[in-house]
Amino acid sequence: MKLYYNPRSRATIAKWMLDECGADYELVPLDFERREHKSPAYLKINPAGKVPALVDGEARLFENAAIGLYLADRYPAARLAPAPDAPERGRYLSLMVFSTSQLEPSMGDALLKLETPPPRGWNDFDITQDVVEQELGDGPYLFGDWFTAADVLVGSMFIWKRMWGGAPGRPKLEAYVDRLLQRPHALRMG
Amino acid sequence: MKLYYNPRSRATIAKWMLDECGADYELVPLDFERREHKSPAYLKINPAGKVPALVDGEARLFENAAIGLYLADRYPAARLAPAPDAPERGRYLSLMVFSTSQLEPSMGDALLKLETPPPRGWNDFDITQDVVEQELGDGPYLFGDWFTAADVLVGSMFIWKRMWGGAPGRPKLEAYVDRLLQRPHALRMG
Ligand SMILES: N[C@@H](CCC(=O)N[C@@H](CS)C(=O)NCC(=O)O)C(=O)O
Ligand SMILES: N[C@@H](CCC(=O)N[C@@H](CS)C(=O)NCC(=O)O)C(=O)O
Repeated sequence: MKLYYNPRSRATIAKWMLDECGADYELVPLDFERREHKSPAYLKINPAGKVPALVDGEARLFENAAIGLYLADRYPAARLAPAPDAPERGRYLSLMVFSTSQLEPSMGDALLKLETPPPRGWNDFDITQDVVEQELGDGPYLFGDWFTAADVLVGSMFIWKRMWGGAPGRPKLEAYVDRLLQRPHALRMG
Repeated sequence: MKLYYNPRSRATIAKWMLDECGADYELVPLDFERREHKSPAYLKINPAGKVPALVDGEARLFENAAIGLYLADRYPAARLAPAPDAPERGRYLSLMVFSTSQLEPSMGDALLKLETPPPRGWNDFDITQDVVEQELGDGPYLFGDWFTAADVLVGSMFIWKRMWGGAPGRPKLEAYVDRLLQRPHALRMG
Protein backbone atom coordinates (compact mmCIF):
# COMPACT_ATOMS: atom_id res chain seq x y z
CA MET A 1 0.00 0.00 0.00
CA LYS A 2 1.28 3.47 -0.90
CA LEU A 3 0.14 6.75 0.60
CA TYR A 4 0.84 9.82 -1.53
CA TYR A 5 1.66 12.35 1.09
CA ASN A 6 2.86 15.75 2.09
CA PRO A 7 3.71 16.26 5.75
CA ARG A 8 2.12 19.72 5.85
CA SER A 9 -1.23 18.80 4.37
CA ARG A 10 -4.53 17.06 4.93
CA ALA A 11 -2.75 13.83 3.96
CA THR A 12 -1.80 13.60 7.64
CA ILE A 13 -5.42 12.51 8.20
CA ALA A 14 -5.04 9.43 5.98
CA LYS A 15 -1.72 8.66 7.68
CA TRP A 16 -3.43 8.70 11.08
CA MET A 17 -6.03 6.24 9.71
CA LEU A 18 -3.35 3.88 8.39
CA ASP A 19 -1.56 3.95 11.73
CA GLU A 20 -4.76 3.27 13.70
CA CYS A 21 -5.31 0.24 11.44
CA GLY A 22 -1.79 -1.03 12.02
CA ALA A 23 -1.41 -1.13 8.24
CA ASP A 24 1.86 -1.82 6.51
CA TYR A 25 2.41 0.99 4.00
CA GLU A 26 4.94 3.14 2.22
CA LEU A 27 4.83 6.94 2.35
CA VAL A 28 5.41 8.60 -1.01
CA PRO A 29 6.17 12.26 -0.31
CA LEU A 30 5.16 14.75 -3.01
CA ASP A 31 6.98 18.07 -3.21
CA PHE A 32 4.40 20.83 -3.71
CA GLU A 33 7.02 23.41 -4.78
CA ARG A 34 8.12 21.14 -7.58
CA ARG A 35 4.44 20.56 -8.34
CA GLU A 36 4.87 16.81 -8.12
CA HIS A 37 1.15 16.60 -7.25
CA LYS A 38 0.32 17.97 -10.71
CA SER A 39 2.55 15.56 -12.69
CA PRO A 40 0.85 13.46 -15.39
CA ALA A 41 1.78 10.28 -13.51
CA TYR A 42 0.18 11.48 -10.28
CA LEU A 43 -2.93 12.83 -12.02
CA LYS A 44 -3.61 9.26 -13.15
CA ILE A 45 -3.85 8.33 -9.48
CA ASN A 46 -5.70 11.43 -8.31
CA PRO A 47 -7.00 13.52 -11.22
CA ALA A 48 -7.84 16.33 -8.77
CA GLY A 49 -4.08 16.81 -8.18
CA LYS A 50 -4.39 16.80 -4.41
CA VAL A 51 -3.08 14.74 -1.53
CA PRO A 52 -3.80 12.29 -0.05
CA ALA A 53 -4.21 9.40 -2.47
CA LEU A 54 -3.86 5.73 -1.65
CA VAL A 55 -2.95 2.81 -3.88
CA ASP A 56 -3.62 -0.68 -2.57
CA GLY A 57 -2.85 -3.30 -5.19
CA GLU A 58 -5.40 -2.67 -7.94
CA ALA A 59 -7.40 -0.26 -5.80
CA ARG A 60 -6.94 3.48 -6.19
CA LEU A 61 -8.39 6.03 -3.78
CA PHE A 62 -8.53 9.76 -3.25
CA GLU A 63 -10.34 11.87 -0.63
CA ASN A 64 -9.66 11.40 3.06
CA ALA A 65 -13.19 10.28 3.90
CA ALA A 66 -13.08 7.62 1.17
CA ILE A 67 -9.69 6.39 2.40
CA GLY A 68 -11.07 6.28 5.95
CA LEU A 69 -14.15 4.30 4.90
CA TYR A 70 -12.01 1.88 2.90
CA LEU A 71 -9.36 1.22 5.54
CA ALA A 72 -11.83 0.84 8.40
CA ASP A 73 -13.60 -1.94 6.47
CA ARG A 74 -10.36 -3.50 5.24
CA TYR A 75 -8.95 -3.83 8.77
CA PRO A 76 -11.91 -5.09 10.80
CA ALA A 77 -9.61 -6.18 13.64
CA ALA A 78 -8.88 -2.51 14.35
CA ARG A 79 -12.61 -2.06 15.15
CA LEU A 80 -12.80 1.41 13.62
CA ALA A 81 -16.22 1.01 11.96
CA PRO A 82 -19.58 -0.59 12.75
CA ALA A 83 -20.17 -3.69 10.63
CA PRO A 84 -22.25 -3.18 7.46
CA ASP A 85 -25.34 -4.66 9.12
CA ALA A 86 -24.95 -2.97 12.53
CA PRO A 87 -27.54 -0.35 13.46
CA GLU A 88 -24.79 2.25 14.04
CA ARG A 89 -23.63 1.92 10.43
CA GLY A 90 -25.98 4.65 9.17
CA ARG A 91 -24.83 7.27 11.65
CA TYR A 92 -21.21 6.25 11.07
CA LEU A 93 -21.47 6.76 7.29
CA SER A 94 -23.26 10.07 7.88
CA LEU A 95 -20.50 11.40 10.14
CA MET A 96 -17.76 10.24 7.76
CA VAL A 97 -19.40 12.12 4.88
CA PHE A 98 -20.36 15.12 7.05
CA SER A 99 -16.69 15.61 8.00
CA THR A 100 -15.91 16.61 4.44
CA SER A 101 -19.25 17.78 2.99
CA GLN A 102 -20.14 20.10 5.86
CA LEU A 103 -17.51 20.39 8.58
CA GLU A 104 -14.51 21.11 6.35
CA PRO A 105 -16.15 23.78 4.15
CA SER A 106 -17.99 25.35 7.07
CA MET A 107 -14.79 25.65 9.13
CA GLY A 108 -13.06 26.87 5.97
CA ASP A 109 -15.60 29.68 5.59
CA ALA A 110 -14.93 30.73 9.20
CA LEU A 111 -11.13 30.59 8.92
CA LEU A 112 -11.15 32.39 5.56
CA LYS A 113 -13.76 34.88 6.85
CA LEU A 114 -16.18 34.08 4.03
CA GLU A 115 -19.96 34.20 4.14
CA THR A 116 -21.92 30.94 3.86
CA PRO A 117 -24.69 31.79 1.35
CA PRO A 118 -27.93 29.80 1.86
CA PRO A 119 -27.75 27.57 -1.26
CA ARG A 120 -24.55 26.01 0.12
CA GLY A 121 -24.82 22.37 1.23
CA TRP A 122 -23.46 23.28 4.68
CA ASN A 123 -24.33 25.62 7.54
CA ASP A 124 -22.28 28.42 9.05
CA PHE A 125 -19.66 27.24 11.51
CA ASP A 126 -21.69 28.05 14.64
CA ILE A 127 -24.44 25.65 13.61
CA THR A 128 -21.91 23.08 12.41
CA GLN A 129 -20.26 23.13 15.83
CA ASP A 130 -23.69 22.65 17.43
CA VAL A 131 -24.10 19.56 15.25
CA VAL A 132 -20.75 18.13 16.35
CA GLU A 133 -21.48 18.84 20.02
CA GLN A 134 -24.87 17.15 19.72
CA GLU A 135 -23.38 14.11 17.99
CA LEU A 136 -20.60 13.88 20.60
CA GLY A 137 -23.15 13.87 23.43
CA ASP A 138 -21.35 12.94 26.63
CA GLY A 139 -18.52 11.38 24.65
CA PRO A 140 -15.71 10.76 25.09
CA TYR A 141 -15.99 9.84 21.38
CA LEU A 142 -18.68 10.09 18.72
CA PHE A 143 -19.79 6.55 19.55
CA GLY A 144 -19.43 6.83 23.34
CA ASP A 145 -16.45 4.88 24.60
CA TRP A 146 -15.82 3.48 21.15
CA PHE A 147 -13.15 5.31 19.10
CA THR A 148 -13.95 4.99 15.38
CA ALA A 149 -12.77 6.31 12.04
CA ALA A 150 -15.42 9.03 12.42
CA ASP A 151 -13.31 10.46 15.27
CA VAL A 152 -10.27 10.48 12.97
CA LEU A 153 -12.15 12.37 10.25
CA VAL A 154 -14.20 14.75 12.41
CA GLY A 155 -11.51 15.18 15.06
CA SER A 156 -8.79 15.99 12.52
CA MET A 157 -10.69 19.10 11.49
CA PHE A 158 -10.59 20.44 15.05
CA ILE A 159 -6.93 19.47 15.47
CA TRP A 160 -6.21 21.42 12.28
CA LYS A 161 -8.16 24.39 13.58
CA ARG A 162 -6.00 24.46 16.69
CA MET A 163 -2.85 24.32 14.54
CA TRP A 164 -4.04 27.31 12.52
CA GLY A 165 -3.91 29.22 15.80
CA GLY A 166 -6.45 31.85 16.74
CA ALA A 167 -8.77 31.94 19.71
CA PRO A 168 -9.49 28.67 21.49
CA GLY A 169 -12.77 27.09 20.46
CA ARG A 170 -15.69 25.77 22.46
CA PRO A 171 -14.64 24.04 25.71
CA LYS A 172 -16.34 20.75 24.84
CA LEU A 173 -14.61 20.60 21.46
CA GLU A 174 -11.22 21.64 22.87
CA ALA A 175 -11.53 18.85 25.43
CA TYR A 176 -12.30 16.44 22.57
CA VAL A 177 -9.12 17.58 20.76
CA ASP A 178 -7.04 17.13 23.95
CA ARG A 179 -8.39 13.60 24.26
CA LEU A 180 -7.66 12.74 20.63
CA LEU A 181 -4.12 14.10 20.84
CA GLN A 182 -3.38 11.60 23.60
CA ARG A 183 -3.65 8.79 21.07
CA PRO A 184 -0.15 7.72 20.00
CA HIS A 185 -0.86 8.05 16.27
CA ALA A 186 -2.95 11.23 16.32
CA LEU A 187 -2.41 13.68 13.49
CA ARG A 188 0.88 15.58 13.74
CA MET A 189 2.34 18.10 11.38
CA GLY A 190 5.79 17.24 10.03
CA MET B 1 -37.86 3.23 5.85
CA LYS B 2 -38.68 6.94 5.90
CA LEU B 3 -37.14 9.57 3.66
CA TYR B 4 -37.40 13.12 4.99
CA TYR B 5 -37.93 15.05 1.85
CA ASN B 6 -38.71 18.23 0.02
CA PRO B 7 -39.54 17.96 -3.68
CA ARG B 8 -37.51 21.06 -4.58
CA SER B 9 -34.28 20.09 -2.85
CA ARG B 10 -31.24 17.86 -2.93
CA ALA B 11 -33.42 15.22 -1.24
CA THR B 12 -34.45 14.23 -4.77
CA ILE B 13 -31.02 12.58 -5.01
CA ALA B 14 -31.75 10.20 -2.12
CA LYS B 15 -35.18 9.48 -3.64
CA TRP B 16 -33.51 8.47 -6.91
CA MET B 17 -31.23 6.11 -4.96
CA LEU B 18 -34.18 4.50 -3.15
CA ASP B 19 -36.00 4.00 -6.45
CA GLU B 20 -32.95 2.46 -8.15
CA CYS B 21 -32.75 0.02 -5.22
CA GLY B 22 -36.42 -0.89 -5.53
CA ALA B 23 -36.74 -0.04 -1.83
CA ASP B 24 -40.05 0.15 -0.05
CA TYR B 25 -40.19 3.52 1.71
CA GLU B 26 -42.38 6.34 2.89
CA LEU B 27 -41.79 9.95 1.85
CA VAL B 28 -42.10 12.43 4.72
CA PRO B 29 -42.39 15.89 3.13
CA LEU B 30 -41.01 18.78 5.18
CA ASP B 31 -42.40 22.26 4.55
CA PHE B 32 -39.47 24.72 4.43
CA GLU B 33 -41.71 27.80 4.81
CA ARG B 34 -43.06 26.43 8.06
CA ARG B 35 -39.47 25.57 8.99
CA GLU B 36 -40.38 21.95 9.66
CA HIS B 37 -36.73 21.07 8.90
CA LYS B 38 -35.67 23.10 11.97
CA SER B 39 -38.18 21.55 14.41
CA PRO B 40 -36.73 19.96 17.57
CA ALA B 41 -38.08 16.57 16.50
CA TYR B 42 -36.38 16.74 13.10
CA LEU B 43 -33.11 18.07 14.50
CA LYS B 44 -32.89 14.80 16.48
CA ILE B 45 -32.82 13.00 13.13
CA ASN B 46 -30.60 15.47 11.28
CA PRO B 47 -29.00 18.00 13.63
CA ALA B 48 -27.83 20.00 10.58
CA GLY B 49 -31.51 20.82 9.84
CA LYS B 50 -31.28 19.87 6.20
CA VAL B 51 -32.90 17.37 3.88
CA PRO B 52 -32.52 14.57 3.04
CA ALA B 53 -32.44 12.31 6.07
CA LEU B 54 -33.28 8.62 6.14
CA VAL B 55 -34.50 6.47 9.00
CA ASP B 56 -34.32 2.71 8.57
CA GLY B 57 -35.39 0.92 11.76
CA GLU B 58 -32.74 1.86 14.30
CA ALA B 59 -30.46 3.40 11.68
CA ARG B 60 -30.44 7.16 11.14
CA LEU B 61 -28.71 8.84 8.23
CA PHE B 62 -28.12 12.29 6.82
CA GLU B 63 -26.09 13.46 3.79
CA ASN B 64 -26.88 12.20 0.31
CA ALA B 65 -23.53 10.47 -0.18
CA ALA B 66 -23.93 8.57 3.10
CA ILE B 67 -27.47 7.53 2.15
CA GLY B 68 -26.18 6.39 -1.24
CA LEU B 69 -23.37 4.34 0.29
CA TYR B 70 -25.76 2.78 2.77
CA LEU B 71 -28.51 1.86 0.33
CA ALA B 72 -26.15 0.47 -2.31
CA ASP B 73 -24.73 -1.96 0.27
CA ARG B 74 -28.14 -2.76 1.79
CA TYR B 75 -29.62 -3.73 -1.60
CA PRO B 76 -26.88 -5.81 -3.22
CA ALA B 77 -29.34 -7.25 -5.76
CA ALA B 78 -29.61 -3.78 -7.33
CA ARG B 79 -25.87 -4.02 -8.16
CA LEU B 80 -25.20 -0.35 -7.49
CA ALA B 81 -21.84 -0.77 -5.73
CA PRO B 82 -18.73 -2.94 -6.06
CA ALA B 83 -18.52 -5.49 -3.24
CA PRO B 84 -16.32 -4.51 -0.26
CA ASP B 85 -13.47 -6.73 -1.47
CA ALA B 86 -13.71 -5.87 -5.18
CA PRO B 87 -10.80 -3.91 -6.69
CA GLU B 88 -13.22 -1.18 -7.92
CA ARG B 89 -14.35 -0.49 -4.36
CA GLY B 90 -11.65 2.13 -3.75
CA ARG B 91 -12.49 4.21 -6.79
CA TYR B 92 -16.20 3.83 -6.04
CA LEU B 93 -15.82 5.19 -2.50
CA SER B 94 -13.63 8.00 -3.84
CA LEU B 95 -16.22 9.10 -6.38
CA MET B 96 -19.06 8.91 -3.85
CA VAL B 97 -17.14 11.20 -1.47
CA PHE B 98 -15.84 13.43 -4.27
CA SER B 99 -19.43 14.16 -5.38
CA THR B 100 -20.03 16.08 -2.17
CA SER B 101 -16.54 17.12 -0.99
CA GLN B 102 -15.39 18.55 -4.33
CA LEU B 103 -18.00 18.52 -7.08
CA GLU B 104 -20.83 20.12 -5.12
CA PRO B 105 -18.84 23.02 -3.61
CA SER B 106 -16.85 23.59 -6.78
CA MET B 107 -20.02 23.80 -8.90
CA GLY B 108 -21.54 25.96 -6.15
CA ASP B 109 -18.64 28.42 -6.43
CA ALA B 110 -19.23 28.64 -10.18
CA LEU B 111 -23.01 29.07 -9.93
CA LEU B 112 -22.71 31.61 -7.09
CA LYS B 113 -19.83 33.36 -8.89
CA LEU B 114 -17.49 32.95 -5.93
CA GLU B 115 -13.72 32.56 -5.99
CA THR B 116 -12.18 29.23 -4.93
CA PRO B 117 -9.30 30.28 -2.66
CA PRO B 118 -6.34 27.83 -2.62
CA PRO B 119 -6.77 26.47 0.93
CA ARG B 120 -10.15 25.04 -0.09
CA GLY B 121 -10.38 21.25 -0.28
CA TRP B 122 -11.67 21.47 -3.87
CA ASN B 123 -10.55 22.92 -7.20
CA ASP B 124 -12.26 25.50 -9.36
CA PHE B 125 -15.03 24.13 -11.52
CA ASP B 126 -12.96 23.90 -14.70
CA ILE B 127 -10.54 21.48 -13.10
CA THR B 128 -13.36 19.63 -11.36
CA GLN B 129 -15.03 19.07 -14.73
CA ASP B 130 -11.71 17.77 -16.11
CA VAL B 131 -11.70 15.26 -13.25
CA VAL B 132 -15.21 14.05 -14.02
CA GLU B 133 -14.45 13.78 -17.73
CA GLN B 134 -11.31 11.78 -16.99
CA GLU B 135 -13.15 9.45 -14.60
CA LEU B 136 -15.97 8.98 -17.14
CA GLY B 137 -13.50 7.97 -19.82
CA ASP B 138 -15.44 6.52 -22.74
CA GLY B 139 -18.43 5.87 -20.49
CA PRO B 140 -21.28 5.52 -20.80
CA TYR B 141 -21.08 5.49 -16.99
CA LEU B 142 -18.34 6.04 -14.42
CA PHE B 143 -17.71 2.28 -14.38
CA GLY B 144 -18.07 1.70 -18.11
CA ASP B 145 -21.31 -0.10 -18.91
CA TRP B 146 -22.07 -0.54 -15.24
CA PHE B 147 -24.44 2.06 -13.75
CA THR B 148 -23.64 2.53 -10.04
CA ALA B 149 -24.58 4.75 -7.12
CA ALA B 150 -21.61 6.93 -8.11
CA ASP B 151 -23.55 7.91 -11.25
CA VAL B 152 -26.53 8.87 -9.07
CA LEU B 153 -24.37 11.09 -6.85
CA VAL B 154 -22.07 12.59 -9.48
CA GLY B 155 -24.72 12.73 -12.20
CA SER B 156 -27.27 14.46 -9.97
CA MET B 157 -24.97 17.46 -9.69
CA PHE B 158 -24.94 17.91 -13.47
CA ILE B 159 -28.72 17.35 -13.70
CA TRP B 160 -29.11 20.09 -11.08
CA LYS B 161 -26.84 22.37 -13.02
CA ARG B 162 -29.02 21.99 -16.09
CA MET B 163 -32.11 22.77 -14.01
CA TRP B 164 -30.50 25.98 -12.74
CA GLY B 165 -30.43 27.04 -16.39
CA GLY B 166 -27.62 29.04 -17.90
CA ALA B 167 -25.34 28.11 -20.76
CA PRO B 168 -25.07 24.44 -21.69
CA GLY B 169 -22.01 22.73 -20.27
CA ARG B 170 -19.33 20.61 -21.86
CA PRO B 171 -20.66 18.29 -24.60
CA LYS B 172 -19.38 15.13 -22.95
CA LEU B 173 -21.06 16.02 -19.66
CA GLU B 174 -24.30 17.13 -21.33
CA ALA B 175 -24.40 13.77 -23.14
CA TYR B 176 -23.91 12.05 -19.78
CA VAL B 177 -26.88 13.98 -18.35
CA ASP B 178 -29.04 13.06 -21.36
CA ARG B 179 -28.16 9.41 -20.81
CA LEU B 180 -28.94 9.55 -17.09
CA LEU B 181 -32.29 11.27 -17.67
CA GLN B 182 -33.37 8.30 -19.76
CA ARG B 183 -33.43 6.16 -16.64
CA PRO B 184 -37.03 5.82 -15.40
CA HIS B 185 -36.23 6.94 -11.85
CA ALA B 186 -33.74 9.72 -12.61
CA LEU B 187 -33.93 12.83 -10.47
CA ARG B 188 -36.94 15.02 -11.19
CA MET B 189 -38.00 18.21 -9.53
CA GLY B 190 -41.53 18.18 -8.07
N1 LIG C 1 -11.13 17.01 0.28
C1 LIG C 1 -9.75 16.59 0.13
C2 LIG C 1 -8.83 17.76 0.31
C3 LIG C 1 -7.43 17.47 -0.12
C4 LIG C 1 -6.64 18.76 -0.28
O1 LIG C 1 -7.22 19.83 -0.51
N2 LIG C 1 -5.29 18.66 -0.16
C5 LIG C 1 -4.47 19.83 -0.30
C6 LIG C 1 -3.40 19.88 0.78
S1 LIG C 1 -4.10 20.10 2.39
C7 LIG C 1 -3.71 19.78 -1.63
O2 LIG C 1 -3.32 18.72 -2.09
N3 LIG C 1 -3.50 20.96 -2.21
C8 LIG C 1 -2.72 21.12 -3.37
C9 LIG C 1 -3.52 21.65 -4.54
O3 LIG C 1 -4.76 21.64 -4.50
O4 LIG C 1 -2.87 22.06 -5.49
C10 LIG C 1 -9.42 15.48 1.11
O5 LIG C 1 -9.88 15.55 2.26
O6 LIG C 1 -8.72 14.55 0.72
N1 LIG D 1 -24.63 18.07 1.70
C1 LIG D 1 -26.05 17.88 1.94
C2 LIG D 1 -26.81 19.08 1.48
C3 LIG D 1 -28.24 19.11 1.94
C4 LIG D 1 -28.85 20.47 1.76
O1 LIG D 1 -28.13 21.48 1.77
N2 LIG D 1 -30.18 20.52 1.65
C5 LIG D 1 -30.87 21.79 1.49
C6 LIG D 1 -31.93 21.70 0.42
S1 LIG D 1 -31.23 21.47 -1.18
C7 LIG D 1 -31.58 22.15 2.77
O2 LIG D 1 -32.11 21.31 3.47
N3 LIG D 1 -31.63 23.45 3.05
C8 LIG D 1 -32.37 24.00 4.14
C9 LIG D 1 -31.50 24.68 5.14
O3 LIG D 1 -30.28 24.51 5.15
O4 LIG D 1 -32.08 25.39 5.98
C10 LIG D 1 -26.53 16.61 1.26
O5 LIG D 1 -26.11 16.34 0.13
O6 LIG D 1 -27.34 15.90 1.84
